[in-house]
Amino acid sequence: MAKEQTEKRMVEAITPRDENFTQWYTDVVLRAELIAYSNVKGFMVYKPAGYAIWERIREHLDRRFKETGVQNVYLPLIIPESLLQKEKDHVEGFAPEVAWVTEGGSEPLTERMCIRPTSETLFCDYYKDAIGSYKDLPQLLNQWCSVVRWEKETRPFLRSREFLWQEGHTAHATAEEAAERTQMMLDLYADCLAEDLAIPTIKGRKTEKEKFAGAKETLALEALMHDGRALQAGTSHNFGDGFAKAYGVQYAGKDNRLHYVHQTSWGMTTRMIGALIMVHGDDSGLVLPPRVAPVQIRIIPIRQKEEGVLDAAESVRQAIVTAYPERKLRVQVDASDRSPGFKYAEQEMRGIPLRIEIGPKDLERGVCVLVRRDTREKEECAIADVASRTDALLATIQKDMYARAKAHLDAHIYDAVTREAFADAFTETKGFVRAMWCGERACEEKIKEELNVTSRCIPAAQEKIADSCICCGREARQLVLWGRAY
Amino acid sequence: MAKEQTEKRMVEAITPRDENFTQWYTDVVLRAELIAYSNVKGFMVYKPAGYAIWERIREHLDRRFKETGVQNVYLPLIIPESLLQKEKDHVEGFAPEVAWVTEGGSEPLTERMCIRPTSETLFCDYYKDAIGSYKDLPQLLNQWCSVVRWEKETRPFLRSREFLWQEGHTAHATAEEAAERTQMMLDLYADCLAEDLAIPTIKGRKTEKEKFAGAKETLALEALMHDGRALQAGTSHNFGDGFAKAYGVQYAGKDNRLHYVHQTSWGMTTRMIGALIMVHGDDSGLVLPPRVAPVQIRIIPIRQKEEGVLDAAESVRQAIVTAYPERKLRVQVDASDRSPGFKYAEQEMRGIPLRIEIGPKDLERGVCVLVRRDTREKEECAIADVASRTDALLATIQKDMYARAKAHLDAHIYDAVTREAFADAFTETKGFVRAMWCGERACEEKIKEELNVTSRCIPAAQEKIADSCICCGREARQLVLWGRAY
Repeated sequence: MAKEQTEKRMVEAITPRDENFTQWYTDVVLRAELIAYSNVKGFMVYKPAGYAIWERIREHLDRRFKETGVQNVYLPLIIPESLLQKEKDHVEGFAPEVAWVTEGGSEPLTERMCIRPTSETLFCDYYKDAIGSYKDLPQLLNQWCSVVRWEKETRPFLRSREFLWQEGHTAHATAEEAAERTQMMLDLYADCLAEDLAIPTIKGRKTEKEKFAGAKETLALEALMHDGRALQAGTSHNFGDGFAKAYGVQYAGKDNRLHYVHQTSWGMTTRMIGALIMVHGDDSGLVLPPRVAPVQIRIIPIRQKEEGVLDAAESVRQAIVTAYPERKLRVQVDASDRSPGFKYAEQEMRGIPLRIEIGPKDLERGVCVLVRRDTREKEECAIADVASRTDALLATIQKDMYARAKAHLDAHIYDAVTREAFADAFTETKGFVRAMWCGERACEEKIKEELNVTSRCIPAAQEKIADSCICCGREARQLVLWGRAY
Repeated sequence: MAKEQTEKRMVEAITPRDENFTQWYTDVVLRAELIAYSNVKGFMVYKPAGYAIWERIREHLDRRFKETGVQNVYLPLIIPESLLQKEKDHVEGFAPEVAWVTEGGSEPLTERMCIRPTSETLFCDYYKDAIGSYKDLPQLLNQWCSVVRWEKETRPFLRSREFLWQEGHTAHATAEEAAERTQMMLDLYADCLAEDLAIPTIKGRKTEKEKFAGAKETLALEALMHDGRALQAGTSHNFGDGFAKAYGVQYAGKDNRLHYVHQTSWGMTTRMIGALIMVHGDDSGLVLPPRVAPVQIRIIPIRQKEEGVLDAAESVRQAIVTAYPERKLRVQVDASDRSPGFKYAEQEMRGIPLRIEIGPKDLERGVCVLVRRDTREKEECAIADVASRTDALLATIQKDMYARAKAHLDAHIYDAVTREAFADAFTETKGFVRAMWCGERACEEKIKEELNVTSRCIPAAQEKIADSCICCGREARQLVLWGRAY
């Protein structure tokens, strides 16, 4: 597809968001040039504009991880079958969806190996040798990599056979420390989502049915997309000493006796780019929060061939970049030979948070025009004030985007106390439904079968809104957040 | 292995470098805790201290790439066999050493796929769709990932079945632009190696025999290790339009006709960590140039239980870090409960460029002691001056390390004009030998067979040091740099 065609298509209207959300999502992904479908079935190409968002997310997470003492490592890409099989629940969960390597260097392997779907087994194998005594604990490691899960149906960012993520794996002397780290990482994810991605979430833990294969407990964040469907946004697992027993990961305590370590793992993936699109996007395309936007400000010159216009645009860029060097603001001038209209449409489609328009008439008056991507509000700004004003506006946009997403989330949580109201809530409204549950897996399965709804989590903030289970009517034990999920 | 044991072993003498270079290298890799052998045969675990060096190298390269307009992307991990096979020379070069995936999601694949050994084929497949007209050119893309090559013998950082690298892939409208980019990236690598890793290199191009599978021309940098063996340090390939023809990558020119693009690729790998060890290391372990050292300064308190010592150490750290915030200096206080002797040995083994010793007696006099890792020179420094002095010292260490490595390289390049002198040069001395060559592959092969020496490159700086080929005596066409390589 020629760039000329791309230009034209980028400014053509995309499918309206409320008409066909699925099509709108695909339109945004392709026209904002985030992803290309590859010819390797089920695998995607992360294009520059998409990958750059991941680089920003990675920076924020990595900094936050390191502040809690986490260090990065890199472990092998492939796992021998015998190693994968040591933890029974884990292998049952993952074996059906892995890719197997069976030949290497022109010879069949003596044992087949899978491409990592996740690396608990490799970290256990490493910790078994790396940990000797209590002095070696805690181990707080993380790796940035891709994993492969052989999905049948795929969608850009949301589900594909390979995705990018980070996986943290820790080992601790006590169950308490492991529990504390599990919660700490959930909180860290929630903070990053709220502060950097402007995405509010609900904290809770997964039911037995929904928890991670091999985990004692899975904590998770649930986010609400614009169409009312849920997206799991970061999970943090507490393994207790289950993996340690399966893999023989022990340490000599101060008591000179051997003890099993207690482990956690936690991950966040490129799915979060899908969440950014579906939480913040609108009918003109992507809307990115300034903290994760690869380009934060794009300056678009008007009648740029007239004398002084391009120079002025460039000096505005310089003024902004040099005013706050420590923030490393990402500012571009679009000096290409396309019309301002094309340039506006492209800047909007790509979700660049702030646009600065500057033309000969503005120059005469020493002003420029600032246009917010999120609200489309315009304001005139003296060129002398442009650095401080844009800096303040970026902060405002970041804050407002979170506030709007939070208001949307809050307005789409419903309580149901009768089975009828529960079913209606999912047909007549869009969002999360809070309802009581007896704790039996059978009820969870029945609800899924009848309503195509899953338990998203048992929210950390518990409340008793009824006495009986929404499904079977027996005594209720927990408040559960239900939803239809991506 | 318990940490206590680690401590003890870290300060035990390692094998002297000049006694057994191979064993010395392995000792450094393990005791500086850069790598652990994994239980997946031929695969390594990059431990925190090793991976952090790669993070620093990556930062420097990534910044330099982006300054030349390169953008990052991510392409699939696996390549269908039919895609790999489209370029004849390329598949011949790589097929024998790949790992094949034959099953996915519990079912045999209809076509086997290899884990990428390099991604030219995938980039071509992507460019075929992404490029329409001359307006889409140049394409300047890069990805950070791991690749798999099923090596038979492995050594930490130097050769393993999986390694980390970056691979840049560009597409251009003209042969001239592609040639220019090939040279630009070679120069960029040379600058990064010289300025950041303090490793001098020799620029040249590979012979037909040694060039990359499928390339028209391979430019390469050759570095000299302390033991006199060569290490290839970064390559940049010009493909001409060979791949474009094999994969059908065309663009519509200004003349409205279809033309094939001209392509390049270029890569640098975790081998460079091996180069850092073998160029700069000494009998006390690793010696890292400040610009790639994960920790640049370690402050070691003496008699740290005495009042004020730890506080003083911490305020020295603060003073250094806050004096030059834009440099983000990496400074640690080692407040662990081990003896100063242990701490010194560990700091030296890990190659931390600068140590600051500070104890009660120093405090009384308002001074501390600075110790350079590279020269072991000590100097007293007023605490009031510590920020500016350490900053200057780090710059000096960086510069001196390069100068020493350059002097070592220059002192180990020999010229040979007779066959006898050529053979002697490789038995009696250690280093590169410059000699004339007729250009025939047969001579290259004969020299390899008889002397176990390969042509490293045809240096960019040509000179006629003799009239006849060092091997066959026929008319010489080029000066070649020969060496024994890792």
